[in-house]
Amino acid sequence: MCEYNIGIDLGGTNIAAGVVSRDGEISERFTAKTDVSSKGSVMAGLAEAARALLAKTGLGSEQIGTLGIACPGIVDGEGGVVEYSANLPLLGADVVGEVSRLTGIERGRIRIANDADAAALGEYRFGAGRGCGDFLMITIGTGIGGGYISDGKILTGKNHAGGELGHTVIVFGGEECGCGRRGCAERYCSASALVRQTKAAIEDCERRGVATLMSEMAKSYGKVSARTAFRAADEGDEAAAEVVDRYISYLACTVTNYINIFQPEVLAVGGGVSNEGERLLAPLRERVLAEMYNKRQPRALYTEIKRAELGGDAGVVGASEL
Amino acid sequence: MCEYNIGIDLGGTNIAAGVVSRDGEISERFTAKTDVSSKGSVMAGLAEAARALLAKTGLGSEQIGTLGIACPGIVDGEGGVVEYSANLPLLGADVVGEVSRLTGIERGRIRIANDADAAALGEYRFGAGRGCGDFLMITIGTGIGGGYISDGKILTGKNHAGGELGHTVIVFGGEECGCGRRGCAERYCSASALVRQTKAAIEDCERRGVATLMSEMAKSYGKVSARTAFRAADEGDEAAAEVVDRYISYLACTVTNYINIFQPEVLAVGGGVSNEGERLLAPLRERVLAEMYNKRQPRALYTEIKRAELGGDAGVVGASEL
Repeated sequence: MCEYNIGIDLGGTNIAAGVVSRDGEISERFTAKTDVSSKGSVMAGLAEAARALLAKTGLGSEQIGTLGIACPGIVDGEGGVVEYSANLPLLGADVVGEVSRLTGIERGRIRIANDADAAALGEYRFGAGRGCGDFLMITIGTGIGGGYISDGKILTGKNHAGGELGHTVIVFGGEECGCGRRGCAERYCSASALVRQTKAAIEDCERRGVATLMSEMAKSYGKVSARTAFRAADEGDEAAAEVVDRYISYLACTVTNYINIFQPEVLAVGGGVSNEGERLLAPLRERVLAEMYNKRQPRALYTEIKRAELGGDAGVVGASEL
Repeated sequence: MCEYNIGIDLGGTNIAAGVVSRDGEISERFTAKTDVSSKGSVMAGLAEAARALLAKTGLGSEQIGTLGIACPGIVDGEGGVVEYSANLPLLGADVVGEVSRLTGIERGRIRIANDADAAALGEYRFGAGRGCGDFLMITIGTGIGGGYISDGKILTGKNHAGGELGHTVIVFGGEECGCGRRGCAERYCSASALVRQTKAAIEDCERRGVATLMSEMAKSYGKVSARTAFRAADEGDEAAAEVVDRYISYLACTVTNYINIFQPEVLAVGGGVSNEGERLLAPLRERVLAEMYNKRQPRALYTEIKRAELGGDAGVVGASEL
């Protein structure tokens, strides 16, 4: 068994890649902008990442175990094909075949999976889900990514499109989502949703002539971020506290839905908003425990809700383990 | 391997049981009212069902492979213990141990599982899910029961409480549910929900002085049932058509949530409302296909939505296969 794998986390904006040891440590890193102008340019970017990392380590391609690629969208891991991707021009692309051709790494050693699934696998092997029987990870970023793993197997469904946890409706007839539905969890619980909710509260305060720290912070930083409401609430701003409270209610609703379905040993929360740490997780846990179906069970049986541990590396590490 | 198993479907109202062959056929049946007055009376009822069936077949208890029990609530299949049941006095009951003691059937041959999970297993082995890799079943009755099976394994979660698909919120802040949450799918998609929705529409029509067939049907049958709105809509009643339409919208929302999460090969709909057949399933499919995340995939990859095949026998047959 080779000592190192390569993991590539292909995003709509950046490619992040690394040489990953068998214990999940990244020894060499590579990052670049994703050139999304064509299918070929994306493939060239992937091959470039692999070649750059091999050059850095001085290893030959035959000394690498697996080259794993994490890719947004619907990914057929067995066929090595991207079936649908909203942000990348990869519809129907035989990514594994192409990258094999460009790098000389044999096809059988190249793997591909959905990026949220790869991140969940990374956390399951080396992060918040270490040693778990079953593990659920949600990533709170621009969207809501989800991945469920039981006995080492990623839930992908028969058509590789499973685990789209963010595209479950929690507000029937609610806000329009990019997926075509209304009221998806992603529209209420993502970092972008929190930014929208914060902006709406600022506008509401301005309309009512009520002062809010959120407004001042937005001016001094030049923008509203997913941190704005949390920081203003910490300073005692009432309108901000309401934004945070409502956001956590939506998130608790969503997380409770997942727990009632999966009852995993651990549910890890990753992505930018998870950097709030206990500021987010403590009230989240409290609300989930009050709502979940099995609240009358002994506490030892409850799903542990914790912060993801690998941060932005989860995708690279998980890809290397595919 | 023994040729026959016994399956017992323990409900809050009735006990249904049967001797089930290896190909899922029920050769002998037993039914009785459930005596819910105490833990002991429920156990006695289970033992009585087993003994009555053995007497009918003339088989000794050693000639039976498995005695399986399907039980509502949170059931620890490995420990043989009921951890929580809303409608039965079985909190913490060692059902497997007690039934073993009362029947003389050795403990190792007695199994117990959640009733919705058992029903899903029955359909997976011998009904709508035959030959599937992964299968999801929802049962639309008084509540919404759910069960997911992948590679023969029932999703129960680490604490045996998983698969509570009916207790996922689709209407944030909506109607109060028996589980303590607000807006659960069960409150909008169960047969009881449809009855409530029908009654509300009748009252609304009466208030507005609008004639509706639903009102006449309710009077002539002496009650409103889950069939009332469907039958009145079939006769051209506009208010009834609205009730059916709204009900199917809620159900489509719920089913799409499940599909976006699991993407199973087959999703079977069982329970009383599924007797509407294509009258329910055709519009349901149409809406789900328009909403689901993978709608751009080739049709061959879509989850097949079909009616459950075993009807009320799913629990008995599934229990026998535990």
